[in-house]
Amino acid sequence: MKLPAALLAAALLATAGAAQAQFRTPQDAVDYRQGAFNVMGNHFGRVGAMANGRVPFDAAVLQQNMAIVLTLSRLPWAGFTPDTQALPSKAKPVVWSERARFDAAAQDTARALTALNAAALTNDLAAVRRAFGETAASCKACHDNFRD
Amino acid sequence: MKLPAALLAAALLATAGAAQAQFRTPQDAVDYRQGAFNVMGNHFGRVGAMANGRVPFDAAVLQQNMAIVLTLSRLPWAGFTPDTQALPSKAKPVVWSERARFDAAAQDTARALTALNAAALTNDLAAVRRAFGETAASCKACHDNFRD
Repeated sequence: MKLPAALLAAALLATAGAAQAQFRTPQDAVDYRQGAFNVMGNHFGRVGAMANGRVPFDAAVLQQNMAIVLTLSRLPWAGFTPDTQALPSKAKPVVWSERARFDAAAQDTARALTALNAAALTNDLAAVRRAFGETAASCKACHDNFRD
Repeated sequence: MKLPAALLAAALLATAGAAQAQFRTPQDAVDYRQGAFNVMGNHFGRVGAMANGRVPFDAAVLQQNMAIVLTLSRLPWAGFTPDTQALPSKAKPVVWSERARFDAAAQDTARALTALNAAALTNDLAAVRRAFGETAASCKACHDNFRD
């Protein structure tokens, strides 16, 4: 079945409108995604400090931090709207020119975080350390490719 | 029972040390609290758009946004460390000079958010609208007193 072109265009516009409506201005979208990455990074760092033995293992604290990381990890991607490309940020142009690759990298990190969260729930520090390493590698791969 | 002064001092220092260790630098603490407020404010705005009828009522979307707001609402307060007082931000000096009053204002907002979340779970739009108004008033009271 082929959708009439006008209907398809209207559907695309409605979707774009909904996405844009999350942010009053392009700068708001940049501030939002940077805020989400900042808070996520802080709590991911606390998970890492525990995974790497710099702070004593405490399953409840680990799981609290992972819950915050998971919640925040779903958010920043919506802030990479096309109209933010010209604004100052560390995002490389390739975020927009190769969006499917960027989205796939975000999905890799989501999968790694899900595995890390599962490890955190087992209270097995060796498993947490391993899954943390894999997640950090996934973060780094995306940063290397898409962030200045 | 009165704690020996040296023991009490050591305990206070340990607590202060733990709080500071969340942030590498005072600027990191400012960025963290601003990031948390930014993301919380964005999702609180989406709740408000629904409460005020600017977007159609959708219980699942409302509850998703409220879950994000609740998670984030617990975070920014840790970023108001004493060593951030001299850094540029909208926080008034009274945050630190009247810390107990600031903490009480934060608690007021936490209570209002808990009630708003309970209303969101009932799917009763009139209750959501009422609880949203009370929460927004609590946010505003704190901003009026503690933010430039």
